[in-house]
Amino acid sequence: MADCDWALALHGGAGTILKEMMTPEREAAYRAGLEAALEAGRKVLADNGTAEDAVVAAVMVLEDDPLFNAGRGAVFTSAGTIEMDAAIMRGSDRAAGAVAGIHTVRNPIRLARQVMEHSPHVMFCGAGAEAFAREQGFEAMPASYFETEHRRNQLREAQKLNQISLDHNDHKYGTVGCVARDCHGNLAAATSTGGMTNKHPGRVGDSPVIGAGTYASNDGAAVSATGHGEAFIRETVARDIAALVQYGCVPLEEAVRRKVLEDLPRISGDGGVIAIAGAGAPVMLFNTPGMYRAALCEGGEAEIGIYGD
Amino acid sequence: MADCDWALALHGGAGTILKEMMTPEREAAYRAGLEAALEAGRKVLADNGTAEDAVVAAVMVLEDDPLFNAGRGAVFTSAGTIEMDAAIMRGSDRAAGAVAGIHTVRNPIRLARQVMEHSPHVMFCGAGAEAFAREQGFEAMPASYFETEHRRNQLREAQKLNQISLDHNDHKYGTVGCVARDCHGNLAAATSTGGMTNKHPGRVGDSPVIGAGTYASNDGAAVSATGHGEAFIRETVARDIAALVQYGCVPLEEAVRRKVLEDLPRISGDGGVIAIAGAGAPVMLFNTPGMYRAALCEGGEAEIGIYGD
Repeated sequence: MADCDWALALHGGAGTILKEMMTPEREAAYRAGLEAALEAGRKVLADNGTAEDAVVAAVMVLEDDPLFNAGRGAVFTSAGTIEMDAAIMRGSDRAAGAVAGIHTVRNPIRLARQVMEHSPHVMFCGAGAEAFAREQGFEAMPASYFETEHRRNQLREAQKLNQISLDHNDHKYGTVGCVARDCHGNLAAATSTGGMTNKHPGRVGDSPVIGAGTYASNDGAAVSATGHGEAFIRETVARDIAALVQYGCVPLEEAVRRKVLEDLPRISGDGGVIAIAGAGAPVMLFNTPGMYRAALCEGGEAEIGIYGD
Repeated sequence: MADCDWALALHGGAGTILKEMMTPEREAAYRAGLEAALEAGRKVLADNGTAEDAVVAAVMVLEDDPLFNAGRGAVFTSAGTIEMDAAIMRGSDRAAGAVAGIHTVRNPIRLARQVMEHSPHVMFCGAGAEAFAREQGFEAMPASYFETEHRRNQLREAQKLNQISLDHNDHKYGTVGCVARDCHGNLAAATSTGGMTNKHPGRVGDSPVIGAGTYASNDGAAVSATGHGEAFIRETVARDIAALVQYGCVPLEEAVRRKVLEDLPRISGDGGVIAIAGAGAPVMLFNTPGMYRAALCEGGEAEIGIYGD
């Protein structure tokens, strides 16, 4: 990858993603989804747009794609409902917006941005988040817009396993996210998710928790995570990576390595992150067999990956 | 204060707390509340109990006391409802539990602990958090249990000011919290709040956000914050203090000073924190005129304060 000025990276979830479980058609569809999102972000950055515009543009493409667990195609809770979370953070002034437990908003990341820009608050959850969406003029989409047969089947599978074990192993942490550095040197991070299949209603994962699944500060790094949310909250993964850079003077690659390959495995925290700092290429790392991911630097070639190396 | 083995500190909110606005009776009542909470925590620690038992015991006393903005006596949202948040974190393994937007649970900190110990999740919000409370056998208290005339008046005042300015200035950030180190050297932090008077329903502050208002890791520090929640989330205050100790090798007192007196004021983040590390006395610091606070070290004298020095 070329040394770069603007750059972006995105992920579409990590987990037990193995080549032998994938059909060529399905793989091509995932690659096309990642490429389309990368292109949406690239366009903003190449036009001298801001990092926050770029991450929102990329995440919206993934939210609209039913293959990814965010927006359309979000997974089901144990009650058969959909509850989505999203967050955005801007590195220049550490402004942030987050929503948790929403079920009618087509693009949760847009609502998170609205919280950041048009409310005095940082985080809204549940009915209050939905009410804020209506105040801000977001259309209420019917449940049928989000629901897919594939996710319905995943819930049935998870619930069958639950009859044996409370701790069912979906081993696929669907979340989408993007980090970017714009031509002004500013960073941003955005994350959006449907959470975990068969989760307890009201459960909030790491995505909308600033410092856990989403974080950006020009002093440190912009990070978006995907994985076993509870472990990522306890390890304050996104902030820790930026803090290791900022306070520990550790290079970004090493900071990511420590959190993803050392700290998280200690508490069985499966997943991965994408991260970007004030200079250099983005870092993408995961401790699961695979992670849907893509990255691009100004003047470089797009890098798209699904499996481990 | 004596050099100490076990130790604890607690706060009951920070803000424009001035001696000239206080009657002797009211001041005595606040002091009595702080003393009672300190005694509840002390008893646990002196009996060789755990840090998490101590912080829960202390916070429950403050939740039950209508003078403090947590549990009984919580402030009202703009809709005239009550929405309480709480979180607990254990330093030995960084286990954590948090609830946001609950309205029927007498002691939100007990529910947060139940999330930590009896669910696979870390955070629950809104209706899902209430449903979890019922599953766990928590009694649903009527709204009248929490509501006080004093808080009703505060809402009326805030709403009057809102007619002029969206950004009303309550200047009093009620939250309660406790940090402790037990005789085994383990740390814990707990925070509980009714949030901000006249807040938008669904708004989540820093208290239940792990790394913002509440954090504990034996590697760094246990921290509980009180203040303008949005700023505390953006500055990941509690984790940052612990990260400065852990990654930056900064003494606890200096780490607290940087966040509370340098980073937070830069974004108008009014408030304060209590913090404790693996050795030494607790640190209590605020950038507001006052903070209700108390601390005690093994073999030392209780320190109780309300105003700045």
